[in-house]
This record gives sequence, C-alpha cells and structure tokens, in this order.
Amino acid sequence: MARLLVAQSGGCTAVINSSLVGVVDEALRQGVADVVGARFGIRGVLGEDFLDLGRQSRSTLDLVRRTPSAALGSARYRLSDDECARVLDILARRRIDHFLLIGGNDSADTASRIGRLAATAGQDLRVVAVPKTIDNDLPVTDHCPGYGSAARFLAQCTLDGGRDAEAMRHWDPVKVVEVMGRDAGWLAAATALGARDERDAPHLIYVPERPFDLDRFLADVRETHQRLGYCVAVVAETVRDAAGRPLGLLDRTAAVDAFGHPVIAGTAATLCAAIGAELGLKARFDKPGTMQRMSMALVSETDWHEAYAVGEAAVRAAVEGQSEVMVTLRRTGSGEQGQPYACVTGLAPVEQVANRQRLLPEEFLHPSRPWVSDAFLSYARPLLGAPLLEYGRLEDTAADL
Amino acid sequence: MARLLVAQSGGCTAVINSSLVGVVDEALRQGVADVVGARFGIRGVLGEDFLDLGRQSRSTLDLVRRTPSAALGSARYRLSDDECARVLDILARRRIDHFLLIGGNDSADTASRIGRLAATAGQDLRVVAVPKTIDNDLPVTDHCPGYGSAARFLAQCTLDGGRDAEAMRHWDPVKVVEVMGRDAGWLAAATALGARDERDAPHLIYVPERPFDLDRFLADVRETHQRLGYCVAVVAETVRDAAGRPLGLLDRTAAVDAFGHPVIAGTAATLCAAIGAELGLKARFDKPGTMQRMSMALVSETDWHEAYAVGEAAVRAAVEGQSEVMVTLRRTGSGEQGQPYACVTGLAPVEQVANRQRLLPEEFLHPSRPWVSDAFLSYARPLLGAPLLEYGRLEDTAADL
Repeated sequence: MARLLVAQSGGCTAVINSSLVGVVDEALRQGVADVVGARFGIRGVLGEDFLDLGRQSRSTLDLVRRTPSAALGSARYRLSDDECARVLDILARRRIDHFLLIGGNDSADTASRIGRLAATAGQDLRVVAVPKTIDNDLPVTDHCPGYGSAARFLAQCTLDGGRDAEAMRHWDPVKVVEVMGRDAGWLAAATALGARDERDAPHLIYVPERPFDLDRFLADVRETHQRLGYCVAVVAETVRDAAGRPLGLLDRTAAVDAFGHPVIAGTAATLCAAIGAELGLKARFDKPGTMQRMSMALVSETDWHEAYAVGEAAVRAAVEGQSEVMVTLRRTGSGEQGQPYACVTGLAPVEQVANRQRLLPEEFLHPSRPWVSDAFLSYARPLLGAPLLEYGRLEDTAADL
Repeated sequence: MARLLVAQSGGCTAVINSSLVGVVDEALRQGVADVVGARFGIRGVLGEDFLDLGRQSRSTLDLVRRTPSAALGSARYRLSDDECARVLDILARRRIDHFLLIGGNDSADTASRIGRLAATAGQDLRVVAVPKTIDNDLPVTDHCPGYGSAARFLAQCTLDGGRDAEAMRHWDPVKVVEVMGRDAGWLAAATALGARDERDAPHLIYVPERPFDLDRFLADVRETHQRLGYCVAVVAETVRDAAGRPLGLLDRTAAVDAFGHPVIAGTAATLCAAIGAELGLKARFDKPGTMQRMSMALVSETDWHEAYAVGEAAVRAAVEGQSEVMVTLRRTGSGEQGQPYACVTGLAPVEQVANRQRLLPEEFLHPSRPWVSDAFLSYARPLLGAPLLEYGRLEDTAADL
C-alpha cells in the first residue's frame, strides 16, 4: 500500500505535464495506493498543500497531458537545511514512500539533499528526480524533456520571422531574436535547425559560452547585411562581455523612463540601438519570452512522448527501491544516416546532476563563426520531432516584356 | 492578350502569398497572357525589376502559397507625384493592362493615385487593390486577410504564456505581452479569444483607442493579482497617454546603454519597470514582434482561404474592366448561434480606403473594464479558423492522507 508524492519545479515547459501524467499512470499501474501531488513544488510540501492525483478522471489526465506549463504549479525555491529536515518530517508523518521531483538543476539539488538526509536517517523513502528543462543543461542525460519543444518553437518562429526581414530588407533589414537558455546556448543553437540555406534565418547565433564582443557583433551584422541585404541574429539573453558584464543591463542611474522608474531594456533592445547608431541600419527585435517554452501548437511529439516516458521510468525506479537517482535519456539510435532516432531511459546518481550545468561543448560550435557545427545539428535535429514546415521561394525568372 | 502586374506592399503576413497565388491562378484561368510580379512593391515597378509569375511551376506556387511573408518582397514607400507619373509611363511602355497591389492603407492610397492618374490621362489601365493587413484597420471590408492568422497566433500564445504565470505565480506573477496593431486595437483585442474563464490569460487588454493611464493600469494589475494570484496584461505597442505621448519612449537624453547609445526600451519593458517599482511585483514581458504575423504553424485556415479568394476576385474585377477599386470581404453568415460563418468578396471604391483607418468601434470594447465586448468576440471568433487548442486543469481534490 505504497504512497507516492510528486511535485513540479522550476521554469515550466510544454511537456512537464506529460511527465506528470506519466508518473500518475505508471504509479496506478504499479498498484501504488495513493498518488499525491504537491502544489507549487517544494513549497506545497512544506505547506502540506496536497492534491489527489490518483482519482483524477481519465479525460482530465488526457487533457492535462496536452496542456503546457505545470498543472500542479511550480516553484523556484532553495530549501534551508532546517526546511530540508521539516520536509523529511512531513514525508514521514504522511507516510510517503516515494518522492518524485520533476525539475532541472536546482530541483536535482533538492532531491539530492532530501534523499541523502533520508538515507542517513534510515528513513524508508525513495527520492527520484525527473529531468525537465528547456535549457537542456543537465549533465549525464543525452538531452532534457522540454528542450525539443522549445527548440522547435524557436527554430520555426525564427525561420518565419526571417522571411519578414528578407521581404522587408529595404525597410527593416535587421532583426535580433532574444532567446532563453540560462548560462547555456542550447536554445540559441537550436534556431539553426530551421535554416536550409544561407538565405534562411538565423544568420548569426550568439551563445553565452562565448564572450560577447559588440564590435565583432556589429561587424558580423554588417557583413551579413552586405552579402544578403538583410540579417537575423539570435542572441541568448544571457550573453556577457569578456569582463562578464550582462549586455542588457543599462546604467541604472541614467536609464529611467518618463515616470522615473529604472528600466532594463534587455539584451536585444540594447543591440538594436547599437546597430542603429553604429551601422545606420534599422533593427527591431523579437522576444518570444515565456511563449517559447509554452507552445503546444509547436510541441515536439518526440519530446512529448519522452517526457511521459521519464515520468513512467521514475516510478519504476522508486518502486524497485532506487533512491537519490535521476532518470536519464540515453540515445540508442542516432536519427542520422538512415538510422532511426531512438532513446531509452536510464538512471544516474542525482548528485552528479545537482547544481551542475552542461554547457554547449566546443565541438557543437563552429570554430570561427557565430554558428553551430554539423555535429550539433545531427544531435539536435531528431529532438524537434517532425520536420519543420517547408517553405518556398519564387523561381528567379525575369519577365520578358 | 492581356498583361497583369502584381506587387506586394506594406508589412508582411502569413497569408499574403496566398493572395499572390490566388492572383496568379485566376489570371491564368482568365487567359491573361503575361502574369508579372514587381519585386519589393512599388519600388520594383519604379526600378522595372520584374519577375515572371506565369511560368512558375505548380509545385513552386503550392509551396509559396504555404509560405509566410511576401514572396515578391515588400515595401513601405510613398510615391512622389513625379514618381506616380513615372510609374504610369512604365506601365504604359510595358503595356500593362491590369495593375494589382496587395497591401493595406498606404497601398490603397498608391493604388488610388495611380488609378486616378490613369483614368484622367485616358490610359487603358485597371488598378485594383487587394486588402492585406494584420492590423485589420481597413474601412469598408468586414475584415482584412492577415488579421485572422496573427490573431490566432496571439490568442494561442497569450493563453499558453498565461499558464506559465499561473503556475509560477509565487515567483513571476505578472506578465505583459506587447502586440502590434498600429493605431488600432484589433490585434490586442483578439487575445481575448483564448480565454475561456477568468483564470485564463489575458486578464487585461489595453488598446490604443483609449488613452493609457499608468495609475489605472497599475491599479488593474494589482486588483487582478490580488484576486487570482497572477496577472497577464496585453498592451498594444502604440498605447499613448492622455497627452498623446507614446509610452515606450524613454527620455532620450537620459536613457543610454553602456555603450552610450540611446535606447528605446519599449512599452512592455517600461510597464514592467513600473510594476516592479510601484507594486513590488516581479514582471516580465513577451514581445513576439514579427513572429506574430509570420506563423504558418498557427495560420487560420479561414484566413488562408479568404486571402486566396480576394486575390482571385481582384483579377476578375480587373478583367471585367473595374478600376480604382479594392476587393472587400462581406460577411454573409455570422458564425454564431448555429449559423455557419461565411464571407463573399465585393468591391469598394479604393478612395474610401486610402489613408483611412478603421479603429475598434466603441461597441467592441467593454464599457468600463480594459476588456472587449461580447459583440467583438462574436465578430472575431470565426476569423481564427479552427478552435484554439483546448487545455485542462487538474480536478481540485484535496488528498486525504
């Protein structure tokens, strides 16, 4: 008569609810008696704000599985040591056998600390982390559920917006697209997956792994504009200069709006201003913001299925007695050169994930240009699911009048 | 042996190429001998930069019809009187019988001036305008091709992003979504179409038709946040205060970035700063920018078909000898109360459209709240095509542990 508690943590994704429903479905299949969710992540555990997940109707679960964001509510919260102990007490008092936390690096840390504490105290509790992050920055796993869908949204929408710059080149020739990704450039890099030839956007990609040099950036934009007549640059919101200064931070003493409030214009707005001032080119920016991680219309079906599978695998691991582990994805079919893409789930010690981040490796970046490598494209393409939409251009036949 | 010249003008849309292919297909069906496109709008006419559209392969046309943006290239350019005369000379020398301009208010003005000049000079030329604008601000027509698709993108993505604020309410409770629309609030208003109950985003909509009052806005955000725990506000990028000042314009003498460039933070960034400073709430913004008008993945199939139909209708009008007209859409089935939605094309004098804009009428706005009326929802819902994605929420059953 086991009892399972699950929570969702960190930034939301289009498929984190697929993982949640994977947990619920597998728990019920495994005969877990009580399947319980905590609202708003670890905050809901501390506040003992619990929802019955085992008695949700099938239609609700099916709908939630196709709903972006975190149906339980999510949290960004680092437990103090005291709170860790309190969580353990609550789990004991509530007779929880399995505690599953769906989240990213920070959640892995929380899972690791609670799991360690339980083991040390001899408390009968399995703690399993379920990977989730659009940033794709968790070590040990091939990739993270959530990444493929955000990558698909960004690759498709950057390609789309690029057609706008191409058609409007004599009026709005330069566009900057600001994307998420924390300290890692996985999402920025993924926008390259939409481009089929040099005319397609993006033309330049700036990742946080490389120091951002404004003069180099402006030279890149100028060169691309001279060559194509237009230019789309993707910039991670977190790029920093060689001194480690974030680009989007204005001098707060100077930058106030008409109401006297300090304003942080952001990375893309800052770059557009520089392009206008230094190159004399009109530049505008797109900042899809949270939309990039929430789109079910542009979900990667591959991602959606894998998110469910990691939820299922976490329950099996817990039921089999595993603790202080995170479910991983291991690629068994590359998806390249005629080999179908395939992934299986595995397990890794959660302490190998906690508070660590996997940045884009050098071999996934182009050695000299602000662009990615073919190895990255091969790695990331299968994660986007079905091919992106295919677009055309008119045949270049001059009229004979 | 007629000759037809077509150009695309103004901001791009997801379906302007559907109109273009509608023109080409109908022209060929009507036996027009030469179907020619000008690159980059009226600029391509002046520069005699012409593309043969009559000999494009079927597969190219089919692909282009499903490609966002303007396949011929587009322009924002107001002709001088001298240039108008030059255009007329070029059309005469090239023996053009039918000149079709796909565009918005400004293009209608261009079409009107050229058509008038031709008529006055007794030149054998038909000039027909094909409506196109995501802003939906053309008079005379029920709505404008391009609007339904941009509206669909914004309604869906605002709903999606709202789920993020709902789940992350204890960390990122407030979001501002900045949308396009020039002086009209049609696009901002359309975001209401995604909300099925008061929990769904958006919760507040600010259109340029009403003066923007910052204190009122902050009070609205505070009230919504107190009631729901989170808040999503949609703001047209062009809202202005009672004195007519655009909100996003910082004091240029004060707002410079780290490199000394003047920065316009934009409407949403300015509001987020005010929310943080005045309400103490963390606010972030999404600015989908050109993505909102370019998404084929979120195209309205209704819009896509109508865009094709107005292209066809323009050719028929020209072949029948009409000039100085714009094709319109007239609703013959409301799409409400069991009556299927239906539209037919019509014609209106283009001078009734030129340089005029149709703002949101009072009856489409809520009398007291920053919201729309039911009449607007009834008007706009059918234009989005298929229903938006349906999302779920967990059943609110407390766990009995």
